Amino acid sequence: MKEEKLGITVKKEDDIPEWYSEVIQKAGLADYAPIKGFMVIKPRGYAIWEKIQEYFNKILKKLNVKNAYFPLLIPESFFKREAEHAEGFSPELAWIEREKGEERLAIRPTSETIMYEFYSRWIRSWRDLPLKMNQWNNVLRWEVKQTKLFLRSREFLWQEGHCAYETEEMCEKEALIILEEYKKMCEDLLAIPVIYGKKTEKEKFPGAKNTYTLEALMPDGKALQMGTSHNLGQGFSKVFNIKFIGKDEKEHVPWLSSWGVSTRLIGAVAMTHSDNKGLVLPPRLAPTQIVIIPIIFEKSKKEVLKKADEIKELLKDYSIEIDDREEYSSGWKYNEYELNGVPIRIEIGPKDIENNQVIIVRRDTNVKKVIKTNQLKETINALLETIQGSLLTKAKKQLNDSIKEVLNWEEFIEGIKNKKIVLANFCGTIECEGIIKDEAGGASSRCIPFNQKATKGNCIKCDKKAKYKVYFSKSY
Amino acid sequence: MKEEKLGITVKKEDDIPEWYSEVIQKAGLADYAPIKGFMVIKPRGYAIWEKIQEYFNKILKKLNVKNAYFPLLIPESFFKREAEHAEGFSPELAWIEREKGEERLAIRPTSETIMYEFYSRWIRSWRDLPLKMNQWNNVLRWEVKQTKLFLRSREFLWQEGHCAYETEEMCEKEALIILEEYKKMCEDLLAIPVIYGKKTEKEKFPGAKNTYTLEALMPDGKALQMGTSHNLGQGFSKVFNIKFIGKDEKEHVPWLSSWGVSTRLIGAVAMTHSDNKGLVLPPRLAPTQIVIIPIIFEKSKKEVLKKADEIKELLKDYSIEIDDREEYSSGWKYNEYELNGVPIRIEIGPKDIENNQVIIVRRDTNVKKVIKTNQLKETINALLETIQGSLLTKAKKQLNDSIKEVLNWEEFIEGIKNKKIVLANFCGTIECEGIIKDEAGGASSRCIPFNQKATKGNCIKCDKKAKYKVYFSKSY
Repeated sequence: MKEEKLGITVKKEDDIPEWYSEVIQKAGLADYAPIKGFMVIKPRGYAIWEKIQEYFNKILKKLNVKNAYFPLLIPESFFKREAEHAEGFSPELAWIEREKGEERLAIRPTSETIMYEFYSRWIRSWRDLPLKMNQWNNVLRWEVKQTKLFLRSREFLWQEGHCAYETEEMCEKEALIILEEYKKMCEDLLAIPVIYGKKTEKEKFPGAKNTYTLEALMPDGKALQMGTSHNLGQGFSKVFNIKFIGKDEKEHVPWLSSWGVSTRLIGAVAMTHSDNKGLVLPPRLAPTQIVIIPIIFEKSKKEVLKKADEIKELLKDYSIEIDDREEYSSGWKYNEYELNGVPIRIEIGPKDIENNQVIIVRRDTNVKKVIKTNQLKETINALLETIQGSLLTKAKKQLNDSIKEVLNWEEFIEGIKNKKIVLANFCGTIECEGIIKDEAGGASSRCIPFNQKATKGNCIKCDKKAKYKVYFSKSY
Repeated sequence: MKEEKLGITVKKEDDIPEWYSEVIQKAGLADYAPIKGFMVIKPRGYAIWEKIQEYFNKILKKLNVKNAYFPLLIPESFFKREAEHAEGFSPELAWIEREKGEERLAIRPTSETIMYEFYSRWIRSWRDLPLKMNQWNNVLRWEVKQTKLFLRSREFLWQEGHCAYETEEMCEKEALIILEEYKKMCEDLLAIPVIYGKKTEKEKFPGAKNTYTLEALMPDGKALQMGTSHNLGQGFSKVFNIKFIGKDEKEHVPWLSSWGVSTRLIGAVAMTHSDNKGLVLPPRLAPTQIVIIPIIFEKSKKEVLKKADEIKELLKDYSIEIDDREEYSSGWKYNEYELNGVPIRIEIGPKDIENNQVIIVRRDTNVKKVIKTNQLKETINALLETIQGSLLTKAKKQLNDSIKEVLNWEEFIEGIKNKKIVLANFCGTIECEGIIKDEAGGASSRCIPFNQKATKGNCIKCDKKAKYKVYFSKSY
């Protein structure tokens, strides 16, 4: 039967897209849907999303952002109010069939417009500010031509935060606080290091004043945008007629921010850490952290299963499972849990019981160790942290090795060709970035890093005075 | 300013629909959207939904049902495979505008068809069964003409569980286990008693073999369907070509079940327990269980705020907030938290500190008590349980008082007119139920209760031999 072929048939080093697609499907994270551009998030994939939700809901609570839910469908007139936003999203909209004369309705690609319509009703006074809301929902962007599971699909799940503030200072400050929280989540939970900073004029969100971004490096040398945080300025407030009476008893226009991360993060994790045996997950993100495989022989079965239960009880603070199915061999099970990315496997057989020991196997390194049962709890505790740290360290090294500062256009082209993220002087104009993209095989700016010293010299491409250094690379 | 008018302006006993709409909006649970049939779930409403999710996710885990996510859009051909299902849902579908020649796609009204397409790919062997998945998602049913916040809207949030089993016995058994879990959730979490049983032929889910239902009584005498659990039989399996090789190495067709509850439950809670001061919530469901209002005078401010913090710390096992805003008076705050349905209010002023006491006020009864600080924790603990129990008891009494067994058609009509749930002998046919609905002002069957003795006598309407006793009432 087809399901019995567990392993990944393509090597990561040979064909990353195909390898990735196999890992995602065979580890049970997601599957392609019959409609082009759509995907199914399977239970193991969804459980990772729930871990991300659980982590980030705590951040939301700390920042006093409240979850809410707004309608799926948005009237056409709402989009049209903010010209850049309308232009940016118009190719991506899916419209509902309606009777003649009825206003067109689109499935939300993002909820700025529908939410700000309500903000204009709810915000009256400075007492109503800051107004901070978040949605966990599904959005649809129709333009996607080819599905890449989690990384690019017409429908995806995400969170979108939308806040209104009295002053620009507060708005800008919290847009950056969110960016820092995203960075921390990428590193601490997903074990993925990022570069981060401000988007260039060309790459910023349609309708935003400033867009901030986090970008991770995928093993194929392409950058992946992990999340964005926008200071939207007062543009949306003005067109949606959001006003408040300030402490000075005069009318003011609030400043808005929006920010989001999506199920794309699951794809980033799978691509960054996995190997030719299948999925590798950082322990803090893994829905199942430990699996116990009792080695079952008829004679010692009862005893081994009892011991397995005791160990599960001993380690109950972790997410732990016993696989005592007798219709599968132990070897088959080892392969299955390697494929599925369970960080630690515990093997226990009759001989281990005699010797008061178990065998533990690390998924990320395949290192096998014999551990005395009375040392098991502290060993597991330390090992889960070690694995988490080791995945981040490895990914950090890959990122750092891939960043290259370049001083002229030849080095720039060479860097992009060699799958580097290049750091280069840039004039900042939309026109020049367009030319760079055309001439450098589709490379685009990733971000303008923070805390730059005054830039000396000229733009890497147009030779006009450089405004700042910018990261460029190919991207998803 | 408009927001300063906090109270409910319509009395529950005078005009329930208008009173309900005010409670929902003024307590900040939901708001009407600019598109007909849609609503916004505001933070306090969404927090209640999160409480329901948290409770039910534990049940799902216990039953080994896994959360997943399937596409929003469903191809027309999928609907058409199951004739009854297609007919039942066709008036409710919203279609996406597409190019000529492309297959039509509808926004999901429920996900049987798209999920079972995948089940046919994933299920091969008895080892793959039972396959038990659940989605928390949004669905759209276009037919709704008039929005009733939470109770009836074109888009709503829900969970839909979908399980596949080897045998009819297992399928039927778990469909009923889910029904019992729903009943327990209604009673234990929402403090809403229900009648429950099987749906008649006329009222069952399009495509189901057996539909089971829970029905609560609203204060206007209408029943509200709180959830349903369907044994779908093998119909969907057959048309979606779902098969498995059994332990006997022969090909079999699995049995399917589906079941769901929605954000409608939030409306049921608000309508059942609330009063003319606003929302009343059972403590286990309340996002904020206790609010502390420090009575602030300039002289004692520091001391009072310090005491409020101490009490918050003492009661940190509960969901507790301090409202120390100085731009609102204490009286205004009392009204606000009564409106918002916070079950217990703690007032603390300088005199209370002198006397080592606080004042606690129950939202459901308005009873005020002075409590010594050293007895506060145990008092609160007991009081939250008392309130929870008292709301259920009160609702149970209302339900029991409203049920009336009737012996002839005159009593039936009289009972419906008097807003009763009537229990009557019924022949079970679709035709007869249609006539009853027409002649009894829209009353329809709610459910066939379980564990009936053999029914004696004839149908209340057509006078043919009765099959069972059935509950009838008007409904939402």
